[in-house]
Order: sequence, then structure tokens, then C-alpha cells
Amino acid sequence: MNYCGSINTPYIMKTTDTDRPTLALTKQLIAAQSVTPNDAGCQMLMTERLSELGFHIEAMNFSDKHGTVQNFWARRGNAKPCLAFAGHTDVVPTGDLKQWESDPFTPTERDGMLYGRGTADMKTSLAAFVTSIERFVSEHPDHKGSIALLITSDEEGPSTCGTVKVIQELEARSEKIDYCLVGEPSSTNQLGDVIKNGRRGSLGCVLTILGTQGHVAYPHLADNPIHRCGAVIEALTNIEWDQGNEYFPPTSFQISNINGGTGATNVIPATTTLTFNLRYSTEIDEAGIKQKVRDVLDQLDMQYEEDWTLFGLPFLTEKGALVNACRQAISDECNIESELSTSGGTSDGRFIAPTGAQVVELGPVNATIHKVNECVDINAPDQLSRIYEGVLRNLLL
Amino acid sequence: MNYCGSINTPYIMKTTDTDRPTLALTKQLIAAQSVTPNDAGCQMLMTERLSELGFHIEAMNFSDKHGTVQNFWARRGNAKPCLAFAGHTDVVPTGDLKQWESDPFTPTERDGMLYGRGTADMKTSLAAFVTSIERFVSEHPDHKGSIALLITSDEEGPSTCGTVKVIQELEARSEKIDYCLVGEPSSTNQLGDVIKNGRRGSLGCVLTILGTQGHVAYPHLADNPIHRCGAVIEALTNIEWDQGNEYFPPTSFQISNINGGTGATNVIPATTTLTFNLRYSTEIDEAGIKQKVRDVLDQLDMQYEEDWTLFGLPFLTEKGALVNACRQAISDECNIESELSTSGGTSDGRFIAPTGAQVVELGPVNATIHKVNECVDINAPDQLSRIYEGVLRNLLL
Repeated sequence: MNYCGSINTPYIMKTTDTDRPTLALTKQLIAAQSVTPNDAGCQMLMTERLSELGFHIEAMNFSDKHGTVQNFWARRGNAKPCLAFAGHTDVVPTGDLKQWESDPFTPTERDGMLYGRGTADMKTSLAAFVTSIERFVSEHPDHKGSIALLITSDEEGPSTCGTVKVIQELEARSEKIDYCLVGEPSSTNQLGDVIKNGRRGSLGCVLTILGTQGHVAYPHLADNPIHRCGAVIEALTNIEWDQGNEYFPPTSFQISNINGGTGATNVIPATTTLTFNLRYSTEIDEAGIKQKVRDVLDQLDMQYEEDWTLFGLPFLTEKGALVNACRQAISDECNIESELSTSGGTSDGRFIAPTGAQVVELGPVNATIHKVNECVDINAPDQLSRIYEGVLRNLLL
Repeated sequence: MNYCGSINTPYIMKTTDTDRPTLALTKQLIAAQSVTPNDAGCQMLMTERLSELGFHIEAMNFSDKHGTVQNFWARRGNAKPCLAFAGHTDVVPTGDLKQWESDPFTPTERDGMLYGRGTADMKTSLAAFVTSIERFVSEHPDHKGSIALLITSDEEGPSTCGTVKVIQELEARSEKIDYCLVGEPSSTNQLGDVIKNGRRGSLGCVLTILGTQGHVAYPHLADNPIHRCGAVIEALTNIEWDQGNEYFPPTSFQISNINGGTGATNVIPATTTLTFNLRYSTEIDEAGIKQKVRDVLDQLDMQYEEDWTLFGLPFLTEKGALVNACRQAISDECNIESELSTSGGTSDGRFIAPTGAQVVELGPVNATIHKVNECVDINAPDQLSRIYEGVLRNLLL
């Protein structure tokens, strides 16, 4: 079964939905089968309502070898500061349908939870963006600054034609985001307990250790690169890259792949290849990492070739206006003290932070994301909407 | 071009060949395209002549999944001691024909050398077996002991239906070889400079280091077996297995293949596999090697799986009757002091030595074996024949 995104069964609104407008919009979004990179009409559901609030909507679609990705940039007003909500309408594939207790694209309430693909990652956040703005603008039509939305449909895919391209477009015309709230599911045990105020950088390398091929019976005529890798692995895994800081754990190093040998058991190969990845803090940078690797290899007198790939720069939003606005809004709505974290994989925040924007991620509990029977608490959508409304108030009044 | 062994252009004897009967027979054998495992009529060329000398010829053909292999066991007399000449009629493929300066199956004299596939490995030796016996038997029809030949046609192939099976047959009927001269090209710079009086053993292992799979962003939840391999490689390559002895260099250890990783750059694999091989002396045995490997792995607290394969036991023929007979014959013919060596890969000697026979390898210069333009000195066949005749005299008169 392949959800192509064009076969949608629209969600039929119920009378009870008027009490819970964010839950209702979340359900409408879940019913759209927007498996990455398809948007399946989700963005239209959002832009129709934003248009009515005076937003200027720009579709920003980009194409590459992977296909065409639908994005939009919406902004209400031009004044500074600009508070942008960022997110994605695409969802990961369903996985094994037999393991779902209800259809992943039929929003289903059960035991106090709302089930469906994308409930947590991140259609609840998208709905909360819209409804929080609706209430805020209705009460404060002349708020200071401006409100924006940057929405893509390829965050779960190659991420080459989404946020990164929209940001390039904005940068090209010097349009700046001051505060960016990404709706990624940041919470761990209960809504609002964790705000992500940064992410580690991700740097990869394919390292080829060079030797001299030969026959295992005549090792003195060869130089075995697999043997050389013993010292290389020992040295690389023992490097202290940094000690982390208040926001980041120490930089970590992992070798994901090693391959050497011709397959024959009597041949010493000419080369052995190691593929490694660093998740790195703001206490070190790309050049610093490369230098440490080269120092180790040179000290071991290795002949080698390196091929580096930067997957994402680290970013950090220190305590300040945006973090404070979020923590206050969470405290007001949920009566809890939220924790700052930079753990986990990369997110689209990595594309936004380099522009100078303050960036945080704040969204639902992430326990079920990318799994079967993805769900959120039935109260999460409207509660998250009130948190976002608090952020709008704290920054734009 | 595939030499199937059935298309032969028989060598037409020339009048000059009568002066050099071993050279002449070598040429006849080279003209038979006996690419392994085909015999292409070589054994018939030998057995026809041996029959005339009173040899009892037994064809011993064996079959397995690789096909049928032609072998023969010939013996003249039943008395002890039994001196057996052992060898193979099959040759390795030609390699790139364009690089041959003359057709590999047309024996060609050029600049004092005889060119052709199998000249050195080992049709010169086969011819020298026959002609040396012809002269010796003609002069000493009532020699003591007995003379035998053990000839196979799969030494260059899988070696599963050749010498190993003939020896099993002989053992089954308690027929013993006392002295075995294998015609492998043992010489390095000039004929007779090196006698191989043993070969190292060959023991292999596929070692799987076990870890716990995970995501590179969450290394604390995984246990990276590639990282563990750093210490494993360091420890295994630093083991002192033995110090060798008068005849053997120290045991050597080489890792031929290493493979770990799923191909994805963000996944820590569950296992990493190392394939290694030891060429070992008679100072250590299979059990001793395994114990040293396990000690190292246990000391490093590794979880692992091992899969060992014994490719060949080491064998050694210490100085004694056979070695002395060979050295004396070389000294008489070539006026040089020959050196004993156990270097190089495995040979069919490994199958014969375990029966208790003294085994040496003595044959032409091996500089061009398995290469294009394989050749021997034009004088080598008849000179080698005289050396073999000396061995016969030294042992059976």
C-alpha cells in the first residue's frame, strides 16, 4: 500500500469540534495523507485561514532531482521583530499497517488519546500555529512586530528543497526572522517539559587508510591497512573533542562502517575504509575537528585520503527573549518549569539559526513519533495552541 | 580463449632432440594444453614410457562437485624403501595472451630459454622424473627398494580429488612412501640453490565481534563493535605466536578482510567481522593458536563468535637421508651448496608428509611461475634429470 497523497478522505467536522478548534484542525490535517514529500492539501487548509487574518501568502515551490516540494511563507505585517512559526506538513510512512490499531489517516480518539500518522510529528503543532494566531490577532489586531509561518513538505525526506531554499530566498531579499519557534515534538513526558534550544552539529567523513596489497603468505612484501586501522580506531575513539558546555553534551564520535579486503582469504588488501560521524557541540568547529583527526593520523604515520561531509552546523539559542517567552507561556498554561535541551538528531532549525535568528523547538510529546500508533493526548492540540498564544503575547505585546 | 585441453597440437620431435631427451619430453608435455584440471594426455605420455620400464600403473581418478580428476600411481617393485616422485600435469591459465611473446602451448626456444606455460611449474620436473628413471633403471635394473610416481592433475585447482585422495587410497591399503621428492619449482636464482624441506601450516578464522546496534546520535544506547575492533586488531597483531626455529620463520598473522556497518552513515552496527589467516611453524599447533586468540579476546572482555578453517598442517623433513641425497646430487651436478627453506605457500607435500614420509620439494627456478612468458633455462630439463638420477643413486644403490 502506497499513500500517494492524492487519495484523501476529508475529515467531516462534528458539532463537538467547535469546543476544541485546534483538535478539529489537527484531525483535518491527519486525514490528508501527506506522506513525504507530498503535502496532500495540508498547506491549503492552513493558508485559507491565514489569508482571512491578513497574512500575505507566498507559495515557494522548489525542484531538484528528488522532485518538486511545496512550501509557503506567510507574513502578517512587516514590522520588527518578526516571530515565525516553522514546521512541515509531510509525515513519515505508516510502517506495517497491520500493527496500527486504527487507520493511520483516520484521526481516532481512544482512551484519551488522538491516534494518527503525524499527530505528534507535527500536525498538532501546525493546527496550534493557526488557532493561536487566530485568537491573538482577533484580540490584538494591532500587535507590534509581525507574525510569519515557514511551512515545508520535505522535512522528513531529503530536506533539499524545503526550509533551506525558503531561507535562501528570504536571505536574498534581506528578510529576517528574529524569533523562530519550530513546532517539532520537543516534549518528553508531558507537554512543555522540554524546549530544544539548539542542536548538535553533524559532520561525517569517509577515511581511507592506504597500505600495500600482497599475499598473506608473504606479509613482509605488503603493508596491511587493516592492521593499521587498529591503532587508528584506538586513537580516534580516544580523542577528547571537547567537554561540552551548559547546553551541549561533549562532542561524540562514532564509526558507522568499516570495510577492507578483497573477499579472498589469502590477499592483504591495498586499502581499508572507515566511515565516521561526529555530533558536535558549539565548543568545537569543523576545522577544529578535522585538525584533531589529521594530527592523530599524522602522528601514527598513516597514508590516507579523507572525504568530509557537513550534514548540519550546530546551533544554539542562549537564554534570552525567545526562550523566556516560551518558558513563561509553558509555566502559565501547564504550571511546570521547562528544561532546555540540545539532544537528539538534526532538524530544520539548523537552516534557520545561521541567519542570526533565535530558534527554539517546542511541540508535543515525542514518545510515538515515527512509530506505529503515533498519538498525542487529546488535550494537547488546544493546550499547545494556548502555549503558542502565550508566546505571541509575551513577544509581540 | 579457453584452453579446454582437448585441442592439442602434438609436438613433432626433431633430430636435435635426441641429444636432449628431457628437453624433448618437456616440449611434448608443454604442447598438451593441460589447463587445470585437465590432463590433456600428459599422463599418457609418462605412463607409456614407465610401463616399458616395468612399472605397475594404476589410474586413480576421483570425482566431486568440481568434476573428475585424473591421477596415477606407478610403482616399480615392492621393496622398501620406496622413493616416490610426486607432481602435477595441470598448469594455471595463460593470463593475457597478448602479453606472451610466443604461444604458451608451443614450446619455444629463445635466447637460451625454453618458453611455454608449465615449463617451470612443473612439466620440466615431470620430464626429468621419467628420463632420470629411464637411465637409472637401465643401468641398475636390480636397484634396491622401489621407485614410484604419484601424479595428479588438480594441484592448481581445488586440490580435493588429487594427491589427497591418492594418499588416502594408499594409506587404506597400508602402502607407504619412505622418501617423496615433489617436483615443485623450489629454486630461486639457479637450479638447485633451494630445497624446500617443509611448509608452514595455514589456519584461518572468521571472527565476529558482537555489539549492540543503535543510532550514531545516541551512542550511549549502543555498543559499537567497530570501536571494539580497534583494541582487538591491536592485541591480535601484537601477539608473539612463536619465534620460529631452524627451519621455520616465526608464525605470521594477517587480517585479510574486515567488514562492519549497514551502509547507512547514522547507524551503529550490531557486529563487525574480521577474517584472518596464520601461516604457522611447527613450534605451535592449531590448539595453541586458538587459545592465544581466545585469551586476548577474553582479556578484552569481548563477546564474539569464531569459525575456524584448517587449510593445511605444517610439515617438516629434518636433515636426514632424503635431504642429504638431494644436496649431494645437486652438489655433484651443479657444484653448489643448496639451502633449505620452508617459505612460500602450501603444496601437495602437506598431504604426503602426515603419512610419515620424508618430503622435499626440488625443481626448477620459480621466477616466472604463474606469470606470462613462463620459462626455464634451456639446460634445466636435462640438468634436473641428472640431479634426480643422483637422488635415485644416493638412495637406492
